[in-house]
Amino acid sequence: MLIVMDQKATPEEVNKVVAAIESKGYTARPIPGGERVAIGILNNEGPVDASLFLGLRGVKDAIPVTRPYKLANREFKPENTIVYVGDARIGEGNLTIIAGPCAIESESQALTIATHVQKAGAHLFRGGAFKPRTSPYSFQGLGEEGLKILKKVRDETGLPVVTEVMDPINFDLVEAYADIVQIGTRNMQNFSLLKRAGRSKRPILLKRGMAATIDEWLMAAEYILEGGNSQVILCERGVRTFVNHSRNTLDLSAVPVIRKESHLPIIIDPSHAAGKRDQVLPLSRAAVAVEAHGLMVEVHHAPEEAMSDGAQSLYPEQFEDLCIQVRSMFDVLHNR
Amino acid sequence: MLIVMDQKATPEEVNKVVAAIESKGYTARPIPGGERVAIGILNNEGPVDASLFLGLRGVKDAIPVTRPYKLANREFKPENTIVYVGDARIGEGNLTIIAGPCAIESESQALTIATHVQKAGAHLFRGGAFKPRTSPYSFQGLGEEGLKILKKVRDETGLPVVTEVMDPINFDLVEAYADIVQIGTRNMQNFSLLKRAGRSKRPILLKRGMAATIDEWLMAAEYILEGGNSQVILCERGVRTFVNHSRNTLDLSAVPVIRKESHLPIIIDPSHAAGKRDQVLPLSRAAVAVEAHGLMVEVHHAPEEAMSDGAQSLYPEQFEDLCIQVRSMFDVLHNR
Amino acid sequence: MLIVMDQKATPEEVNKVVAAIESKGYTARPIPGGERVAIGILNNEGPVDASLFLGLRGVKDAIPVTRPYKLANREFKPENTIVYVGDARIGEGNLTIIAGPCAIESESQALTIATHVQKAGAHLFRGGAFKPRTSPYSFQGLGEEGLKILKKVRDETGLPVVTEVMDPINFDLVEAYADIVQIGTRNMQNFSLLKRAGRSKRPILLKRGMAATIDEWLMAAEYILEGGNSQVILCERGVRTFVNHSRNTLDLSAVPVIRKESHLPIIIDPSHAAGKRDQVLPLSRAAVAVEAHGLMVEVHHAPEEAMSDGAQSLYPEQFEDLCIQVRSMFDVLHNR
Amino acid sequence: MLIVMDQKATPEEVNKVVAAIESKGYTARPIPGGERVAIGILNNEGPVDASLFLGLRGVKDAIPVTRPYKLANREFKPENTIVYVGDARIGEGNLTIIAGPCAIESESQALTIATHVQKAGAHLFRGGAFKPRTSPYSFQGLGEEGLKILKKVRDETGLPVVTEVMDPINFDLVEAYADIVQIGTRNMQNFSLLKRAGRSKRPILLKRGMAATIDEWLMAAEYILEGGNSQVILCERGVRTFVNHSRNTLDLSAVPVIRKESHLPIIIDPSHAAGKRDQVLPLSRAAVAVEAHGLMVEVHHAPEEAMSDGAQSLYPEQFEDLCIQVRSMFDVLHNR
Repeated sequence: MLIVMDQKATPEEVNKVVAAIESKGYTARPIPGGERVAIGILNNEGPVDASLFLGLRGVKDAIPVTRPYKLANREFKPENTIVYVGDARIGEGNLTIIAGPCAIESESQALTIATHVQKAGAHLFRGGAFKPRTSPYSFQGLGEEGLKILKKVRDETGLPVVTEVMDPINFDLVEAYADIVQIGTRNMQNFSLLKRAGRSKRPILLKRGMAATIDEWLMAAEYILEGGNSQVILCERGVRTFVNHSRNTLDLSAVPVIRKESHLPIIIDPSHAAGKRDQVLPLSRAAVAVEAHGLMVEVHHAPEEAMSDGAQSLYPEQFEDLCIQVRSMFDVLHNR
Repeated sequence: MLIVMDQKATPEEVNKVVAAIESKGYTARPIPGGERVAIGILNNEGPVDASLFLGLRGVKDAIPVTRPYKLANREFKPENTIVYVGDARIGEGNLTIIAGPCAIESESQALTIATHVQKAGAHLFRGGAFKPRTSPYSFQGLGEEGLKILKKVRDETGLPVVTEVMDPINFDLVEAYADIVQIGTRNMQNFSLLKRAGRSKRPILLKRGMAATIDEWLMAAEYILEGGNSQVILCERGVRTFVNHSRNTLDLSAVPVIRKESHLPIIIDPSHAAGKRDQVLPLSRAAVAVEAHGLMVEVHHAPEEAMSDGAQSLYPEQFEDLCIQVRSMFDVLHNR
Repeated sequence: MLIVMDQKATPEEVNKVVAAIESKGYTARPIPGGERVAIGILNNEGPVDASLFLGLRGVKDAIPVTRPYKLANREFKPENTIVYVGDARIGEGNLTIIAGPCAIESESQALTIATHVQKAGAHLFRGGAFKPRTSPYSFQGLGEEGLKILKKVRDETGLPVVTEVMDPINFDLVEAYADIVQIGTRNMQNFSLLKRAGRSKRPILLKRGMAATIDEWLMAAEYILEGGNSQVILCERGVRTFVNHSRNTLDLSAVPVIRKESHLPIIIDPSHAAGKRDQVLPLSRAAVAVEAHGLMVEVHHAPEEAMSDGAQSLYPEQFEDLCIQVRSMFDVLHNR
Repeated sequence: MLIVMDQKATPEEVNKVVAAIESKGYTARPIPGGERVAIGILNNEGPVDASLFLGLRGVKDAIPVTRPYKLANREFKPENTIVYVGDARIGEGNLTIIAGPCAIESESQALTIATHVQKAGAHLFRGGAFKPRTSPYSFQGLGEEGLKILKKVRDETGLPVVTEVMDPINFDLVEAYADIVQIGTRNMQNFSLLKRAGRSKRPILLKRGMAATIDEWLMAAEYILEGGNSQVILCERGVRTFVNHSRNTLDLSAVPVIRKESHLPIIIDPSHAAGKRDQVLPLSRAAVAVEAHGLMVEVHHAPEEAMSDGAQSLYPEQFEDLCIQVRSMFDVLHNR
């Protein structure tokens, strides 16, 4: 339930409502809004009796929340969440492009690619230092050395960097280097990791699980929000189906659904969905057409030698062409 | 295998190659192309020995065909197939919009909607006279009366009409009224119906089956092509997955794959994929962004009362907005 | 809704209830039961007002039917449907085994296999004369010649025969030869075919569609029942999923669900589910363990040369072993 | 690649082969077998040249391993792995039954249920102390208090206990109490957790991921084996599909495939697959029929009040009946 306060409600009145909520054994979470304060009621078992609060001074309304997720719910927070990282604003009326290799392989590889993607118009650089790999015998990433290379990329190019964290133990380390911390598909319901992410100061990029429903995905985001970190970016990367001409089936209808149900920004990873290079460009355009807030694209200066895990990286020239095309689609869609 | 003839090969030389193919017990199918003739070899069991034909006069090359479909294969026919219906050209560098109600309910309903969609820019009118229904107790369509109403719509508006056929028995009747004959999702592998469609003079709109791979879909098209009807339009309408926020999961990666593997035009039906009205517009824009050749959209002047089967029809104003948006996306994509 | 009559209700009273139902524009369908008559109300749009009928003489109760299927619903007919074919009784407390090749290839092939499977304990012989094939270039079956061979098998062995029908046009022909007419997976929602099957005197074996829910499957059966043919056998053969170690994923939970929701018998086809020979035996045992009413198994005397379509046939000795194992499991399950 | 040594090969000869393997930059892993030693070659990139080793003294054969998993591969280790826990032997020719509640709720709840399931014939007790929950607002388990209750159950009943671990941080704690440590569905590809499990002294019960292929599942097991822990039990619990009459679709064909491809034991969790109580018994019988090595079943003395997460627990009497039925099926299957 969401208790909506009058515009003129005083801090004292808000505090009294919080106390009334907590006296029932619930958790109260004030949500500062543009014009008024609202207070979310969490951790209730069973329905909450609105009449307990409707009579209190300064209370305007009590709205039942119809979804299992609350903090992630647009009913709770009607305004879009915008994530600010460096010069990038993810979630506002613009298109954020994140690009880079699957894995950081070396300093020269990272800097070469970063220079390419920055020139083409990327706003952030991505690259894995700790890599989740299906096989224990595959390259698992450079670890902290990879993180240091990412720092160097940021220092030299000014691009904020996105990189994946794989467990709560390494979180401090990853957080110290990353501008955005990524939680991967296979960890979407790694609840210990989500709880740790909730205590992070960094924005979290949360990829959708391979067979996750929208509700499960938003509940995973809820873990992070509930821990106190409001900076969550969702990333659709395809779901697993019987279809065999792509690596995963990109579920673009997730974008209008997320935009309706939640205030969190949503971006698309066409590279992992497609698996095949020649599907990346059309799917990127489609992502813009359904009004995703951004794209995350794998790019490599020598794709055939990339230490990748299933996605086929684009050549720099292909990425440049992609940026031009998606920007012109974005502009026409927003009448610019 | 595909036997490619010299540009200057004479009809006599072509005939000799055909005879040589047939003498081996295979079927020869000459394929007239823009600049040269090619001859497809069908009905071979096991591989064909190219050397049998490479020595014949006028033969330039013998190309093994790597997919199970042949006539539907771009290797066989590199040029796009264009389907001409009335003023519409489906498959060329333009965007064809088909719109109308799920079912024809009455003459006034059909004419009202047809007037709306024509004004908004639709090129063809759709409406079901024979309706496949999950339940035997649901409205099964007006039958021949519905076909007569479609004729009236064409007479009054000039819009060509698309309508579904459900079995070989009614094919003659449907064909007599329809400009394009639709084969529905549940009949994609109704091989008797496909064979009958192969003998039709009408273009066939072939919807993808609910769990069909691209290969199975193109093999279904192959049945029609093999019967002698080269006018096939493919229609993606979503596949069945675990996802529950849309009725089906629209598989937009099918478009680049079909465009690469086949010369047949492919359009998108966002209405049956989405199931929900507010997903239709973003998915329509996405369909244009992946370069589908057209859209088929359900529209009704009173959607809440529509005799529909799962798709939610758009209001006429919503469809008008859709046409404006998809046309501007199409234009920017083609630098117009 | 189901109107349940008193045990002592007279035919006259039943007729009056029927008349009352029809006067409301609904269809009345009397269902003779063991001890009392019940009358189903069909073709109502929206809910039916029970009070219209509860006051009539001889009416004991009016039960709302909670599923979209009615005649297929166990609420409508609590007793199991038993299908009698030759000496076989499908649906009673016994295990019916149907076996034979994918396709009838020749008289000697069919008779050889029939002799084998009969000796091993099969109750019916299966074999395709009209074959649905993904490719138009694959062997499509011997047609009427195949049907004549099936007749010969029945004449010589006494085994009733099961064979597939592919369209309404050939139904008369197939029906004239077959003891049970099969409707295949790809035709589960070929509604014209289902309607024709509803007018048949033969029992119908209705395979589950590749992506069909239980509701859709029972609605397909409803088409047949509604047409007047009460002899329907359901056949689970696996559904299409992301799983790639079998051809389809055998959904054995369908058996307890069907047995609860419907009175129709359900059998399992492990051969098409598995795709791989060594999965057929364990899946057959599992089918018995979930209390399927029977099995349909592909057997060939020379499996490597079989004209099959994806299922791998068992060798006769393997089938013999299967029969022994499933019978002993069946016996222990029924305390014999 | 697998280097198979002569039966009479000396330890010195084995060491020389190991050294030869390592000199190429590969990892050598000697695998002690019943009659002879084999040495696995790991961490090779690209194919290994067998001739490098075939000439060495004591080498009998060099077998290429055709699957990405090696230590989990039956080619590597033909004998079944048997996991010994207390009196239970999982993987041998017997049927191991694990039962208990979803979550440990209190000492009296746990002891009540443990007494019931022990009497009915369970070999191990299960119960969650740390619970992965879709919602942050759901009961997350009693934590260490729950582990202490599990210890008490073992002390009082003698039943070994199975409980879930959720992250590397708590692993030491869980390991100190559990006889078998469970890694849940949502953590199947939590590689940090898998690596920690590889260093554990406890057997690991590894559940299949919701959309995992057999290869991915065995690769997850490979992480544990590669870390040095050879005691892995696989647990199939249903995969996510479009099917909506059960919570997940139990993929029983996984059992014959795992038994063929791997030496690891595989058990079935019918409770989480079914979701519905009345499917648990038939699916348990089916699990025995496909020759799973055991069952893991949710049981609660008051199922309607159970703090469960989707599976419906059985009543103790239902579980007793289940044990009787599955044992008699097991006996007939093994001619006892």
